[in-house]
Formats: sequence, structure tokens, C-alpha cells
Amino acid sequence: MKIAIIGATGYGGVELLRFLQYHPFVHVQSVHSSSQEGTALSAVYPHLQQAESSMLEKIDVEQISKTSDIVFLATPPGVSSELTPRFYECGVKVIDLSGDFRIKEGHVYEQWYKRTAPPQTYLEKAVYGLSEWNRAEVNDAKIIANPGCYPTATLLGLAPLVQNGLIKEDSIVIDAKSGVSGAGRHVSLNTHFSETNENVKIYKVNEHQHIPEIEQMLLKWNEQIKPITFSTHLIPMTRGIMATIYAQAKKELSAEMLVDLYKTSYESAKFVRIRERGNYPSTKEVYGSNYCDIGIAYDERTGRITVVSVIDNLVKGAAGQAIQNLNIMMGIEEDTGLQFMPVYP
Amino acid sequence: MKIAIIGATGYGGVELLRFLQYHPFVHVQSVHSSSQEGTALSAVYPHLQQAESSMLEKIDVEQISKTSDIVFLATPPGVSSELTPRFYECGVKVIDLSGDFRIKEGHVYEQWYKRTAPPQTYLEKAVYGLSEWNRAEVNDAKIIANPGCYPTATLLGLAPLVQNGLIKEDSIVIDAKSGVSGAGRHVSLNTHFSETNENVKIYKVNEHQHIPEIEQMLLKWNEQIKPITFSTHLIPMTRGIMATIYAQAKKELSAEMLVDLYKTSYESAKFVRIRERGNYPSTKEVYGSNYCDIGIAYDERTGRITVVSVIDNLVKGAAGQAIQNLNIMMGIEEDTGLQFMPVYP
Amino acid sequence: MKIAIIGATGYGGVELLRFLQYHPFVHVQSVHSSSQEGTALSAVYPHLQQAESSMLEKIDVEQISKTSDIVFLATPPGVSSELTPRFYECGVKVIDLSGDFRIKEGHVYEQWYKRTAPPQTYLEKAVYGLSEWNRAEVNDAKIIANPGCYPTATLLGLAPLVQNGLIKEDSIVIDAKSGVSGAGRHVSLNTHFSETNENVKIYKVNEHQHIPEIEQMLLKWNEQIKPITFSTHLIPMTRGIMATIYAQAKKELSAEMLVDLYKTSYESAKFVRIRERGNYPSTKEVYGSNYCDIGIAYDERTGRITVVSVIDNLVKGAAGQAIQNLNIMMGIEEDTGLQFMPVYP
Amino acid sequence: MKIAIIGATGYGGVELLRFLQYHPFVHVQSVHSSSQEGTALSAVYPHLQQAESSMLEKIDVEQISKTSDIVFLATPPGVSSELTPRFYECGVKVIDLSGDFRIKEGHVYEQWYKRTAPPQTYLEKAVYGLSEWNRAEVNDAKIIANPGCYPTATLLGLAPLVQNGLIKEDSIVIDAKSGVSGAGRHVSLNTHFSETNENVKIYKVNEHQHIPEIEQMLLKWNEQIKPITFSTHLIPMTRGIMATIYAQAKKELSAEMLVDLYKTSYESAKFVRIRERGNYPSTKEVYGSNYCDIGIAYDERTGRITVVSVIDNLVKGAAGQAIQNLNIMMGIEEDTGLQFMPVYP
Repeated sequence: MKIAIIGATGYGGVELLRFLQYHPFVHVQSVHSSSQEGTALSAVYPHLQQAESSMLEKIDVEQISKTSDIVFLATPPGVSSELTPRFYECGVKVIDLSGDFRIKEGHVYEQWYKRTAPPQTYLEKAVYGLSEWNRAEVNDAKIIANPGCYPTATLLGLAPLVQNGLIKEDSIVIDAKSGVSGAGRHVSLNTHFSETNENVKIYKVNEHQHIPEIEQMLLKWNEQIKPITFSTHLIPMTRGIMATIYAQAKKELSAEMLVDLYKTSYESAKFVRIRERGNYPSTKEVYGSNYCDIGIAYDERTGRITVVSVIDNLVKGAAGQAIQNLNIMMGIEEDTGLQFMPVYP
Repeated sequence: MKIAIIGATGYGGVELLRFLQYHPFVHVQSVHSSSQEGTALSAVYPHLQQAESSMLEKIDVEQISKTSDIVFLATPPGVSSELTPRFYECGVKVIDLSGDFRIKEGHVYEQWYKRTAPPQTYLEKAVYGLSEWNRAEVNDAKIIANPGCYPTATLLGLAPLVQNGLIKEDSIVIDAKSGVSGAGRHVSLNTHFSETNENVKIYKVNEHQHIPEIEQMLLKWNEQIKPITFSTHLIPMTRGIMATIYAQAKKELSAEMLVDLYKTSYESAKFVRIRERGNYPSTKEVYGSNYCDIGIAYDERTGRITVVSVIDNLVKGAAGQAIQNLNIMMGIEEDTGLQFMPVYP
Repeated sequence: MKIAIIGATGYGGVELLRFLQYHPFVHVQSVHSSSQEGTALSAVYPHLQQAESSMLEKIDVEQISKTSDIVFLATPPGVSSELTPRFYECGVKVIDLSGDFRIKEGHVYEQWYKRTAPPQTYLEKAVYGLSEWNRAEVNDAKIIANPGCYPTATLLGLAPLVQNGLIKEDSIVIDAKSGVSGAGRHVSLNTHFSETNENVKIYKVNEHQHIPEIEQMLLKWNEQIKPITFSTHLIPMTRGIMATIYAQAKKELSAEMLVDLYKTSYESAKFVRIRERGNYPSTKEVYGSNYCDIGIAYDERTGRITVVSVIDNLVKGAAGQAIQNLNIMMGIEEDTGLQFMPVYP
Repeated sequence: MKIAIIGATGYGGVELLRFLQYHPFVHVQSVHSSSQEGTALSAVYPHLQQAESSMLEKIDVEQISKTSDIVFLATPPGVSSELTPRFYECGVKVIDLSGDFRIKEGHVYEQWYKRTAPPQTYLEKAVYGLSEWNRAEVNDAKIIANPGCYPTATLLGLAPLVQNGLIKEDSIVIDAKSGVSGAGRHVSLNTHFSETNENVKIYKVNEHQHIPEIEQMLLKWNEQIKPITFSTHLIPMTRGIMATIYAQAKKELSAEMLVDLYKTSYESAKFVRIRERGNYPSTKEVYGSNYCDIGIAYDERTGRITVVSVIDNLVKGAAGQAIQNLNIMMGIEEDTGLQFMPVYP
């Protein structure tokens, strides 16, 4: 399988390369960048020296379509809206790591993203690539909208509760904490070391564009679900997301029962690991890997459930899940090329 | 005013010294440690060299009572239970930075702290030193139970909502994030650098001993309040607490109205700063200072209020508030000796 | 004494404010910024809210000269070259935190800074403000070239050895490590959190503009001194510089003798603290304070001396030393307004 | 090839597992711990959950010898001194990650390590496993003394200069900076988060036990080499070592010539990458990988050479090089099972 990576100079793009380098059935045919065409990728990222000798090429849809079967788009907002339809028409499958094709309704996208939505006809062709829950659709897809980092952690954490109607539909509060790499490589005061180190910041309160992405999937699972509260915090670390999820149980439950439910729900999911009762994952325990680790608590005093879901935002929250989706599309083992254990400590 | 510091080798103790060194009306008469008696304090903490020449003395209640008017206890759990009654009987006022005297009912203390409560008679004499809301009682107190770091950030953030009955009483969820210094100087795997850096951990889920401390004060303000959900996370930084507080409004509100309410509530509070609508504080913005900064959001989609409250856990969450209480007890300006601006960046 | 701060939106400027806020003999008359005129300073730095209500004003030399006695320039390279002569001619004293007036010979400045030097006539009027060693000149100065952060740590560490001719003149190697705030608030990939955290980088190898500044002072003390090797490393922390200094002893020495020499050399220096033999300072032990802490080792195997000198780069390496120089110019106690103990931990 | 890991609960042990999990020719037969026998390894390290199901077994030399061909010792100082001779006599090869067998002369070991040396007869059988320079001996070895983390970075950085007699023999100064994981998992105040974060510390000045290890190898390459100065600093990060190496050139050189020399010296070394002139590696660029990246500068002003050598202390500085040596012993490709690209950012 020949693939091309568009937007290879971002963190998502370079993380794709880390995994695809040793993928047994995939060949990275070309890497592309609109801003650094003609530069060696290893000049942009010296850690790739020797391992990776590609030159960054311009983004020429027709040319790429002749040499690659699938393209990964790891591009800034709005770029995929324009490129994906063109690749589609050339018969090239797209795995889009950006948010452009995740929201099914154009007007919702425009409200939260403050930019023009892709054409509705292509939005409808896109499959939301939450691998564990959409395997069948992913398998047949021509366009994959790869989930956002926060939605991945959140949805994997909420799925069993929402699908089984165990929680009050208007009670969901998600407090998410993210490492700074989620903001990408573009420099800004918000990600300036001296302003970020020894600091916790909340941002985009009630306005994060991942809110409609999460709600859309929750509603697909359970149409009774009401709007959620979802907060995002920037934490002084590079990688990792923890979503701490709170919801009110409809009836009295127990932690044991919940842990069992989660284990059953994710029985066949190679990358979702459920912790035993009383144990909760930390972000470092999935660092550099495609795992999503989940712990569940039930508080008898309040009747409230707490779910703790962690991922590496650049792996399961981006490049890793994209490759997992590629594997599903190719009909091979889901963890091919992704069998990396977490880097600890 | 002559004071003694018991437990001067912990982070709370040494932070008391940083502020009291230049307090115009206070003289640090002696510093005490059970474990390092006879050592110079500057040998334990080289950053004090030259500025501080005290030797650590043993904890002799009678002796201390002869030379000091007030003692600060910055001691591990259980120590104050034993020492405070003795100081009281010697006529020495106590400002206790530990949790021993915060919970009014002994059996509640014993349930959450898993240790024997202090005698009920002394518990009743203790005043909960949340300076902004208990000035009158603090002024007359003989024993101050200085609030915990998490309860300080949380209660200052919740007070206007709870006192004014604006939120559904069973809807309070607090997601708190703390720097590692809150765990003190005692070494453990949990605070080992390599396991803490580049990592976010949740701990004591539904079991944190600050839960009853928060609920006790909320109930004093509003007896309708129901049990809360309160979660604590360890963040890879040294200082700072952010409490992100979620609650359901009883009726439709607006951010403007809430910001106004908070400004009014804290009009006379020198150390509480309310952010304008749409602005939220980060922990670094209070670093090293006694400020508590608060931002408030209202989400029309969900009817939920989000309050963001930040403090430096070692200052407003410990030593700073203790000195603020001392000032109130002495009848002097509340910010005497505490006029330090945040260290930024 | 009325002062104005030019370049108040940088880290040096805001740190000046932290200290001057409570300086008993200084009034900050106005704060100035070329880029953010008309904005409240607390809008740029929310941590100043309530404590500081100044509006940023434009840089109008004539206007400032009417209202202030002394100006602090905390401006980017090249700005002071232009402003300082104008203030001088208006009879206003200047304390310049930038590097523009530190190098006595214009052609040397131009070679290392790659920009036009200030007029030679004003260069000659400037006094190099290494407080501990240039008190007399500072006292009389009209223009102070406040030393760079690296040179401050390095020169205070080397002075006793070089002044007393104890080391081989061609043997000096300085390996310096700095926190990221030294690079200022201007965003760049080099100071982007994700590229800086969990990382050590060397930069400007053999090309750092602080090299001629250090050599100039060493030669003033001892004209036999040969060119030095000076390397700078970016460390994943915000504040702090450690200069590890290596030099070959001319004859056999001992650590005791060296520690004694340093203690004598800095006997009257309130801000230089010499560690006992076998003890070495860490950067956190001076965090937020104006101290320079120094430890000294002598290795009998190699005859080499190792000096470890630490400062807070924004305090003793910038704003703190600037205020120390101001105090000297005013003829008051050198530590006025600077009596802040290190913030630890 | 069946292998056993002794000391599997340390960072070196768990890192061996990360790589060996997918090594095509190696089977991890058993994992051993003196302190946590009977516990599942995934209970000690939750990040291993699902991927690794081994139980920790006691250290029974006879039993292990029956089931394994090679043992890795990732044990605290002194343990290997006792175990290695016993494994040897049982015909089991040993790759020792501790320092016990690195120093050829027992009395030197005892002087620097302050503990009893292993029997001289076994010391002589041990081969120093600096893979790039000792391939032939490693290939035949029965006991491998795997190099220390600092010596690996330092020796790879110095080899071309020392082997070719380019530098003055008494001019070597090495300033090394290390992440905290090098201190292992054992808790201490020195590695306590709050004392280590936002801090740089120098330690064991002129007394580090890696000094004789480095000198021994330098002398093997060039018997004129004189005692070195070698300083170690603890940096607030988890992984990574940078050795900044200074030495005086014997005659005038150029950076080009030096870069060429290094490229030639390491032509066949898969894991050593030489940077182009004017480029220097940072530690993050080798994070999680077995690479050693090297940059070289020559300063015409001083005639001094600066070499910057970086590794991941737990990989090339421990587990990775140990596996590289295993591969050499097995006669297979040196990078088998080690083809991991750096995790960046």
C-alpha cells in the first residue's frame, strides 16, 4: 500500500512517520508541505536524520494521485475542506487528521469553527474514524474523518455508559487536561515555554470546537443525551490527555459492576485497557503508545460516576488512530505497526 | 508579637519564614522540629543561608509558652491534636496549618482521616480560618484551624453561589489540579520526579479528606447543600492549585450578572481578584503570592456555571492565609507582610 | 525618586515592577511600550491586576524627561543605542538593561551583535554596572550598562581567581545553563514549549554576544587573561542560570583556601553567598531573589578549579541588579527594596 | 535465545522489556526481583498491563541457569559482584547493566565505589561493552560490563579525538547534564519533584564513579591521556544526557575537518549520527531511541574543540546498548529489535 503524507512538518505528520517507518505493509511514497517544499524532512526535524531521507514536495493532487493509494492529511483547519474532494474525485482514499470532516452538519461546523464547511455531499461520504466503535463503516470508507484528541479520550470513556443508558442525560461534565503538543508546532504566547511551564490554564471555556464532535457521537449512541459541559486545560507537559468524566447514575450502581461493563464493552479492543476497581490510569502510562486506559469510580454518597480516560494525544488522539483506521481499511490486524509499548518513565 | 514555628522544616514552615522575615510587627522567636533538633535551619534549606540563622530547637511546649505569644503548627497529621490543647492550656494561641482541627465533628474526622480526632472540647474552640468569610471569629480566636489548600480555592470560588442559593444543591462537581509541593517534603514514589514529570495523575478518588472540610463550610452557608463530587489531580509543576468548579444554575443567569455578584461579594477582600467576563486566571498568575484569582462562566446551552479559582497552594493555601489570620487576630491590616506580587513568569 | 520604565511589557520590565512596587524611596511615574501604547499593563499581564493600574504610554523622550529622574530601559537590542543619548542630553540618568552599552569598543560590539554600535562618545560615558565590583563608578554614573545575565553569574564566580592571578590565563572554560525566560517573551520555535520541555539544547556555540562582555571585564581585572570558551545551554525551566566554571590553577591549592578567599572577597557583598567546602548551590536556591550563590571545588588529581555560580537570570541577572545599581546611585542601602528571600520550593 | 532479566522492577529492567517484547530472536523467559517476588510485573508498572503478564520470580541462579541462555542484570551496585560469578560458573552469559564489572582494577573500583570489588579473576573475564568500539571482544564475551550512561555519551564523543592524538592530553573537561531517571526509581530528596523541578543541581563534584570508567577507556585508546575533569548536573527532565566536551587542539584544526573525521570514524555505526558543521543535537532528538548524536565545533579564537554528544540515558546509556551487545554476541544485525525512531516532540 502506497501512501502520501500531506502536512508532514506538523507533529501529527511526523508522528505518522515514526510508526509507518516500520509498518510491514505500507510504503511512504512521498511527504508534502505547502510551506517547506524542497527541504529535506530531516532538516526540519533533525531527529529523523539517517532514518528518513525524504524531501518535502509540493501538494499536487493529480501527481500524488498517480503514485499513492491513500493520503493522510495532517493539515491546518480548512485545508482538507479543499483537498479532500479533489483526492476523492481522483479515486484516492483520504484519512483526514484535521477537524474539517468530523461534523456532519455544515452549519454546526461553521458555528463552532468559524469557517466555511466543506461541501455537504462530501461531508456525507466521510466516516468518523473512532476505530473501536465504527469498524464496519471504517472498513468501507473512502474518506475517514479521524477523531480529535479530546473526543477520542472522552468518547471511549463515555461509550459504555451512554450506550447502555445508565446516566442522567443532562448530567455529563468532562474536565479535560492536555499536554501542549496538542496545540501543534505553530508558535504563540500560549505555548511559549516561560508562560506554560509551572502553570495550568483553562481555555476556550464552553467554546471548544470538540464539543459538537463529542455530542454528535453521543447522540448517535443515545438520542436522549443533552448538551454537555466540556472544559479544556493546558498542562505543563508535552504529551498526554486525561479526560475526567462526571455523570449522574440513573439508579444505584457499583464500581464492580461498572468495571465489568467496561471490560465487556472493550473485550475485543486491543488498545483499550480497563483498570481494576480502585485503580486509575495516569497519562504517562500510555506515553508514545496507541493505548487508551480507563478507570471507573462510583461514589455512593453522590450517586455520581467518575471515568478517567487517558491517551497520548499524538498517537491514539491523532497519528496512531489514523494508522489503526488504515489497518481496518486494509483488512489487516488492527495493531499492525502500532505494537509499541508505552515509553515509561 | 513573638511567634514560634513548629514543624519549620516542611514546606509550610519554610514559607512562613519567607513572609515573616520582613513582617513589621512579628518576631520569629524560635523554630522547632522533632526530627532535626540542633541543626541550623539553613543547613536543611541552603536558600536561607545568611538570611536566617536560627537553630532548630526541640518541641518543648512549656518552654515555648514562656517566650512566644502565638505558635504556628506546620506539622504532619496528628501532631497538632496532641500539641494544640497543651498550648491552649498554657495560654498560647495556636494557628494550626494541619487538618487536625478543621472538622468540627470528631467522628467525621476519624472516618476521613483514619486517625483519632482531637478532644471534642478543643475542636469546639477552634475557628476555621477562611479569612475572607470568618473575619469576626478569627479576630477572637484562640485556636485557628487554617484551611486546607484545596478547600481555600474551592470555597472562595463557591461562596457567592452557595450563599445566594443560585445553584442546584446536588449539582456541585469540583475538578481540582495541584502542583506537587502540596504533598510536602516527605519523599514517595508518587512525588518521585521521574514518575511525576510529563504526567497527570488522579488520586484519592471520592476519598480525599478535604471533602468533609469543604462540605462543612458549604452547609454552614446553605444547609440545603448536598454531598459534592471533588476530584484531585497531581500536575507536573511545583506550586499552584486550580479548582474548576461546575454547578447547575437554578434559573437562567448570565456571565455579566455572575461577575458582578462576585465583585460585590469580594469588594473588601484584598486578596481575591475577580476577572472580567471571558477571562480566566491561570495558576502562574498568583505564583508566590497570597492572591486567589477567580473567573466565572455561564453556559446558556447547559445552564451550567463554571468557576475557575486559583491560588498558590503554599501561600493562600497555607502559610499566607495563616499570616493573614495572624494579622486579623492582631487587629492590623490584613495584608501586612503579605504584599508580595506574584512572581511571573 | 521618580522613575520611568521603557519596555515594560518584557520580562525584565515586569520584574522591575515587582520589586519597585514596594521600594520605599522610588515612585514609578510611568511605564512605556512602543508596541502596546494605550493598553493597561494589567491587560498584558493579568497577574498585575489590582496591584498595578498603569496604562502603557508611548516613548516620548522629552515628555518622560520632564516627569522622571531616572529611566530604566528594558528594551530589545538597538533601541537603547538610539534612546540613551537623547535621555542623556535631557539630563535624565539611564539604567540600560539591554546589551547596547556594555561593550566599550564599538567595533567589537558590531562584530558580535551584528548591528551598529552606539556613538563612541556615549559608550565612554557608560559604566558597567556589576554592582559588587564597580560601586564607586556606579555611584557617579549617568549611564549604567546593566550586565547581562550570563556575565553576572560568570564574573562574580571568576573575580577572586582572576584578580588574584591564581589561574592559568588560557584555561578558562565556562559551561552555562539557563532557564528559558532569558530568551524573553518574544515567541519562537526555540522557546516553544513542546520543543523545549524534556530537552537540553546548546546554542550559539562560540558565538554568544556575552563572550566579549565577560572578556572585557576579566581583562580589566587582569590583562594577562586569554580568550575564554563560553557555552550556553537552554534548560527546561523558566528561571535560573548556573555557570559551571573550570580553570587550571597555577600552583597547588586547596578547597579550604579557595573558600576562604571567596568569603573574604565578598565580605561586604550582601547578595553574594559563599557555600562551605563540599557544598554547591542549585538555581532554585536563589529563585526570585537577588542572590548570587557560589560554591568552589579544587581537584587534586587535575589541579583544576571548579566554580559553581547561580543566579535568578531575571533578578540578579537583570531587574534586581538594576535596582541594586539604582540604590548605589541614590546612595542608599544596596538592598533597599530587594530584601526578598528566595521562593523555595 | 532465552533470556532472563534480574532486577526487572528498575527503570533499566523495564526498558529492556519495552525493546525485547518485539525482538524477533529473543524470548524473555523470566523476570526476577529480590524485593517483589510473587507480584505481577504489571502491578508494579501499570503501563505494562495487557502487554506483559509475567510474574516476578525470586533470584535462583541454578533455576535460571536451567531455563535461560543469557541473563541481564539490571541490579543495584554490589549485586552483580555476587551473582555474575555464579552465573558464569553455570555456563550462563551475563550482560551486566550495573557498574560492578566495568573497572578492571579492583582497587580503583573500591576507591571510587566505596565497596568491595568483585573477584579479580572475573573482572578479567568481563568485556567492556561499548558496542561501537569493542565489537570483536563483545562478540566473544561471556560477561559484558555494559557501559554507564555518562561514559557512553562521553566516550563516543571523545573517541576520534583521543584515538587520533588530536588534543592536549591534560585538557579534557566534560560538563555533563542528565535527566533524573538516571538516578533510578529509588526515592530520595534529591529526586523529589518539588526539589528537582525548576532547578539545576551539580552533584558528586570530582567524585563521580564514572570518572575512572571514562579514563580507563581513554587510556586504552591513548596512553598519554591525563586525568580528566568530569562534572555531572541534574536537569529537570526525565530522560536524556548531554555531554559537552571541551579539549585543547594540539595544532590548528577546522570544524570541517573534524566533522569529516567523525563521519569516517562512525561510518559503520548505525546508532551514531554526526551532525553537519554548525549543527548540534539536543537530547530530545534521541528520546526513546538507541541513537547517539554528535556535533563538533572548533573555536579559532581559543584553539579549543567543543563536542556535544547526546543519548537517551535509559536506552543507549543502558538497556538499548545492552541489547545491541546481545545482538553482537548472537552474531545478528546490531540494530535488531532496536529500530525505534526517537519520540519527538
